[in-house]
Amino acid sequence: MVILIDVESDSDPRLRINTDEGYMLKVETKNNQVIIKVSGLSFCGARHGFETLSQLILLDQSTGYLIMLSSAIIKDAPTYKYRGLMVDTGRNYIPVVDLLRTVDAMSTCKLNTFHWRISDATSFPMSLSKIPELEEYGPYDRSMVYTKKDIRMIVNRAGIRGIRVLIEIAAPGPVGRPFSWLSSTTCSRKNNSLTCDNDLCRRLTMHDSTFDVLQKIYSEILEMTNVDDVFHLSDSVFSMTNCYYLFDDREGFLDKALFRLKMANKGFLPQLPIIWYTSHLMKHFEAKTWERLGVQIDEWDANPYESYLNKFRVIHSTKWDLSCEMRKQRCIRYRTWQQMYLWKSWRNVNVFTTEGGESILWTDLVDSSNLDYHLWPRAAVVAERLWSDVVANGSANKYVYMRLDTHRWRMMQRGIQVQPIWPPWCSFSPSSCLERVH
Amino acid sequence: MVILIDVESDSDPRLRINTDEGYMLKVETKNNQVIIKVSGLSFCGARHGFETLSQLILLDQSTGYLIMLSSAIIKDAPTYKYRGLMVDTGRNYIPVVDLLRTVDAMSTCKLNTFHWRISDATSFPMSLSKIPELEEYGPYDRSMVYTKKDIRMIVNRAGIRGIRVLIEIAAPGPVGRPFSWLSSTTCSRKNNSLTCDNDLCRRLTMHDSTFDVLQKIYSEILEMTNVDDVFHLSDSVFSMTNCYYLFDDREGFLDKALFRLKMANKGFLPQLPIIWYTSHLMKHFEAKTWERLGVQIDEWDANPYESYLNKFRVIHSTKWDLSCEMRKQRCIRYRTWQQMYLWKSWRNVNVFTTEGGESILWTDLVDSSNLDYHLWPRAAVVAERLWSDVVANGSANKYVYMRLDTHRWRMMQRGIQVQPIWPPWCSFSPSSCLERVH
Repeated sequence: MVILIDVESDSDPRLRINTDEGYMLKVETKNNQVIIKVSGLSFCGARHGFETLSQLILLDQSTGYLIMLSSAIIKDAPTYKYRGLMVDTGRNYIPVVDLLRTVDAMSTCKLNTFHWRISDATSFPMSLSKIPELEEYGPYDRSMVYTKKDIRMIVNRAGIRGIRVLIEIAAPGPVGRPFSWLSSTTCSRKNNSLTCDNDLCRRLTMHDSTFDVLQKIYSEILEMTNVDDVFHLSDSVFSMTNCYYLFDDREGFLDKALFRLKMANKGFLPQLPIIWYTSHLMKHFEAKTWERLGVQIDEWDANPYESYLNKFRVIHSTKWDLSCEMRKQRCIRYRTWQQMYLWKSWRNVNVFTTEGGESILWTDLVDSSNLDYHLWPRAAVVAERLWSDVVANGSANKYVYMRLDTHRWRMMQRGIQVQPIWPPWCSFSPSSCLERVH
Repeated sequence: MVILIDVESDSDPRLRINTDEGYMLKVETKNNQVIIKVSGLSFCGARHGFETLSQLILLDQSTGYLIMLSSAIIKDAPTYKYRGLMVDTGRNYIPVVDLLRTVDAMSTCKLNTFHWRISDATSFPMSLSKIPELEEYGPYDRSMVYTKKDIRMIVNRAGIRGIRVLIEIAAPGPVGRPFSWLSSTTCSRKNNSLTCDNDLCRRLTMHDSTFDVLQKIYSEILEMTNVDDVFHLSDSVFSMTNCYYLFDDREGFLDKALFRLKMANKGFLPQLPIIWYTSHLMKHFEAKTWERLGVQIDEWDANPYESYLNKFRVIHSTKWDLSCEMRKQRCIRYRTWQQMYLWKSWRNVNVFTTEGGESILWTDLVDSSNLDYHLWPRAAVVAERLWSDVVANGSANKYVYMRLDTHRWRMMQRGIQVQPIWPPWCSFSPSSCLERVH
């Protein structure tokens, strides 16, 4: 077997916002010699070609031989540019080894963005040389910190798999105890001793000293991830404790944060700064200033401000939330992979561009013990939707079940704990099940 | 530290139906020497004492020392005799290493019965020397078989942890393809070539040749498990495909099965033969013949035949089903640990005796990848209910949360993947969460 690799033009091995991820895979057999050509316009494209090639080679258990097609031509490219997976490590600490495995798993599905929501009001588990206070006040425990070395290891692992790492820190709030050392923080309700009634509700105020700190953080993130064309600025208002916010308190956050991001990035604003969708954004002046901003949409209910979205470059996450729906801090239910596969209404939203989508995991009740359970196969199902969103994939038909079942075994062989697609007797006898899955 | 062990009277190390599992644990400190006395009336009781002792010793992370109480007296005994966990390995094959880990996990909760529902209509993954056909027709795959050596290993592992292994084979049906070689099987609907329309619906008929086979199976189970006072006879009608059954076809099953069980057990009927609750049992003659039989109750809906139950020795499982509620072969939802902890109505059922209870797991969508996720912490929560079912444990109050959270960490340290009891910031600051868990 001979493998020829041809990366045609793009000299930057990183995934950039305009990287062409398409590839071509050609298999020929001449004189009993299998010749495989993997070509792409970029490193990332060629890598995807190898991923597909690995799926064409099977072990024939009866003979012990590896078998593959003697002849094939595959031309393939993703439908959407941004194909993400978000893992929250602020509500719960997820060990580095689990994040590395998650990056491996992502690469089997050709996902290209690991959105690492690293902090939350509950913890800030990142060690930053310019702001040592955060390591002191931030983590749940001294052992629950990501060092620069940890982060670089994850960034490198991701990079050679065609995956960019976006690190998001929750701001302007709630930011909680990790920022309690900073004078420019406040809470809506204080008790008699003038400290926060509930430290989980502490948030950043719009003073310059807040943005001095944020600029330092942005600068270290840019340096560690080596991603300077896409940046997740957060601007979120997720709250675990129903803290009461005066939205006016946030006025100007986006302006100032974008300015500081530009400063941190040597004077250049990243091409695609992303923020979370908030009704706040839609209602106020910021929407006017910042057209063509990236907006990530994650709302359980229908969105009443859709008409504003046509100014933005959108990343869809609404029905791709992998977390449990929680009530009284209990997991009530979560979406099935079929529901995620069949979600279609996002295509009808009127946006400037659909950059792509992302499945997201909040870790209130998730840690190392059940991370894979929550991620897989559902994030793989969303990945297929984002890579090849064609009409033929409209329903979860028998080909979808059988294809995912096969992909599950591939992922299991790489050490990922993927939940069953369907009962095992269905894998052994698909026809007896297929009539009953709908 | 000196540990003195005293097993007072019971010379049989096995867990028997009348084994006294109580223990006493006494800790004294004399002249800087810690003296620990563990005493019980049986091996199993003393073992439980050691389990509790292990919970009294903590590592002080700041000093690196092990610490424990200098003085304590604990007298403890279970409320219910039968404290079980059922795992189904017929719908999905669960590797031996996972079953061994499950037995380890059970021992941390002082559960005493591993109810191994080994076969189902979908597969019969057990190798039996007297019936080689079952190994040929039974397993999903040649590699998915429990050998005698595997079973003995699990039985031994369980035995030294005070746990009996009850192996149940699904009978009289559905028994599916694994029994298709046996002439005394049938199905309700046959196709034109006189074979079963759906092999999953194949069931045993009440011919003698059926019971010849069952007697051989019972005999091998008795020999492998070394448990001859309790036996699970199945008599189940769980069906995955809505097969249509003529209940009259089953008439006489229980009589004949009990007779054959007695024959297989050298002429002695086990003291507690157990069958699953079926409306069939309650309505027909068998209820009159077999008073004081063990009946395991597992129904999602309220039970309309409760008045018959006062003849039986009952094992409760109704709301302790750990499986997903499935619809169209998808997991729709499952019970939370709080729901399982709070289930109380079983105490109001009028029965001859309550032998105990059992949490049960059907593995339609469970395999090695997500076994622990389904079992823990919920089976541990049921275990607490069965060991110390006192009024003080009526609600899931703050002591329950904190106790289970501590127990979770103990189990994690032994390599069990236990889901979080609540969000991690609650463990670090219980008071901020406790007001909101109800």
